[in-house]
Amino acid sequence: MKAKIHVTLKNGVLDVQGKAVAAGLASLGFAGIGDVRVGRFVEIELSAKDRASAEASVKQMCEKLLANTVIENYRIEIAE
Amino acid sequence: MKAKIHVTLKNGVLDVQGKAVAAGLASLGFAGIGDVRVGRFVEIELSAKDRASAEASVKQMCEKLLANTVIENYRIEIAE
Repeated sequence: MKAKIHVTLKNGVLDVQGKAVAAGLASLGFAGIGDVRVGRFVEIELSAKDRASAEASVKQMCEKLLANTVIENYRIEIAE
Repeated sequence: MKAKIHVTLKNGVLDVQGKAVAAGLASLGFAGIGDVRVGRFVEIELSAKDRASAEASVKQMCEKLLANTVIENYRIEIAE
């Protein structure tokens, strides 16, 4: 199975990388740019007996390693 | 409008961050982990007159700033 995980900063947490990208785009001449948020996208191939156990396992991975849950949210999608 | 962009390493490019995550997960006791790939996820709020012009503009942003197209692929989704 394949898990796709999006890790994004929580609302209200200053996204310095996003601010840098927004400034970079503006200096390149792109107009009408609003808020920019930069996060991580992680794809994990894993073997699990079913979808539910895969999801539970990936949730543990996010809590323990992939996301800093103090300042980040994560979203998990499991594909076959 | 909101653009969601996934930037991922091309196949065949060594993903050192992914290897580090895979090793970290293994050392935390997670079994059955296969390939891990780590990419970036960028959300951009932008004003554009229609979906097509938003997509064209975001494609330019990816080519010029957001992705290193020598080693990275990007995928754009436009949401209202």
